[in-house]
Amino acid sequence: MTSAVPPPQGGPTRRRPGGRTSRIRTQVLDAVRAELGERGYDELTLDAVAARAGVHRATVYRRWRDVGGLLADLLEATGDDDWQPQDTGSLLGDLAALNHENQAALTARPSIAAALIAASFRSAEAARGLDRLWEDRYARCEVIVSRAVRRGELPPDTDARRLLVAATAPLYHQLVLLRTPPDPDLPDQAARTAVLAASAGAFTGSR
Amino acid sequence: MTSAVPPPQGGPTRRRPGGRTSRIRTQVLDAVRAELGERGYDELTLDAVAARAGVHRATVYRRWRDVGGLLADLLEATGDDDWQPQDTGSLLGDLAALNHENQAALTARPSIAAALIAASFRSAEAARGLDRLWEDRYARCEVIVSRAVRRGELPPDTDARRLLVAATAPLYHQLVLLRTPPDPDLPDQAARTAVLAASAGAFTGSR
Repeated sequence: MTSAVPPPQGGPTRRRPGGRTSRIRTQVLDAVRAELGERGYDELTLDAVAARAGVHRATVYRRWRDVGGLLADLLEATGDDDWQPQDTGSLLGDLAALNHENQAALTARPSIAAALIAASFRSAEAARGLDRLWEDRYARCEVIVSRAVRRGELPPDTDARRLLVAATAPLYHQLVLLRTPPDPDLPDQAARTAVLAASAGAFTGSR
Repeated sequence: MTSAVPPPQGGPTRRRPGGRTSRIRTQVLDAVRAELGERGYDELTLDAVAARAGVHRATVYRRWRDVGGLLADLLEATGDDDWQPQDTGSLLGDLAALNHENQAALTARPSIAAALIAASFRSAEAARGLDRLWEDRYARCEVIVSRAVRRGELPPDTDARRLLVAATAPLYHQLVLLRTPPDPDLPDQAARTAVLAASAGAFTGSR
């Protein structure tokens, strides 16, 4: 989902407001985002993060231990934000807005979202952190389906997760797995495909 | 697509029939598949491949140079097979069969397909090789759509690639990106969703 990771400028590290510990975490995670986006997983080191954050190396090593620890904490912090899917007033509009957000996050230069997905194939800690973040994001997106049910656009027994995956998967597939150039029409097309399938009953019933 | 990589037992390395060079390539690529599937990208070394293949280290180093070279050649050999999508007599059947093949390839233990996708996030040569293989596989699958058009199941101006991506992406999304456990119903469900969307006109027209 979008916001598999919000863009770096979003400030998601605000769990414990104030305090030196919290400030250091914010500085370090901002530095992780910047290093990851600009240089990628291969170049990510605790030393480079400490230098960029202006934080003592010893503090970074003690608290985050290794690159996996940094990525896991970055993903946890990302999941602590207050992101919600847009409420556009229609199922098609909501799904298209979600896809546009995802496409923007995945094609940003640098893309933290793409870097974290790539990192999840290399670090088991990053993979676990990203799995939790995906789960959280899809859970938050279920409101798109419940709103559509309330508006009478979808039957009450619609399988929200399957509809959301159908609407969002083609975009990830093309950008992340197939690595094709971004198609500006795809966010709207994939949303429309899912809505048409939903209208034809694809996401209700036992199968 | 399936056969993003056929299972290891499939013998795809038969470009130059006969000859010592060809035999060595077959032995080496079989060893790459076995090492990759059992031990993963991190443990893949030319020495281990040479030992497993029973081929001189010097030969492997001279001809394949590094792990990227081995993966690129494995992917090229994989693309040289004669794989074709099954012809079941209906669009729904063909797409479901394709998804079942993909699910089997991605959940095999070990899964060469999953290992090659993971490797593509770590080696630029593997990424380029995999991109060519995806392109080749989706091109071969377009016959699923042209057969359906001939049978009158789809309008002639159906966008084959978009339909194929819609039908296959949810499975890759869940197994490769979200890393959720395999859902035995998903291959059929995703095929059915794409067929319902196609019947509703999702893949025709300019958008």
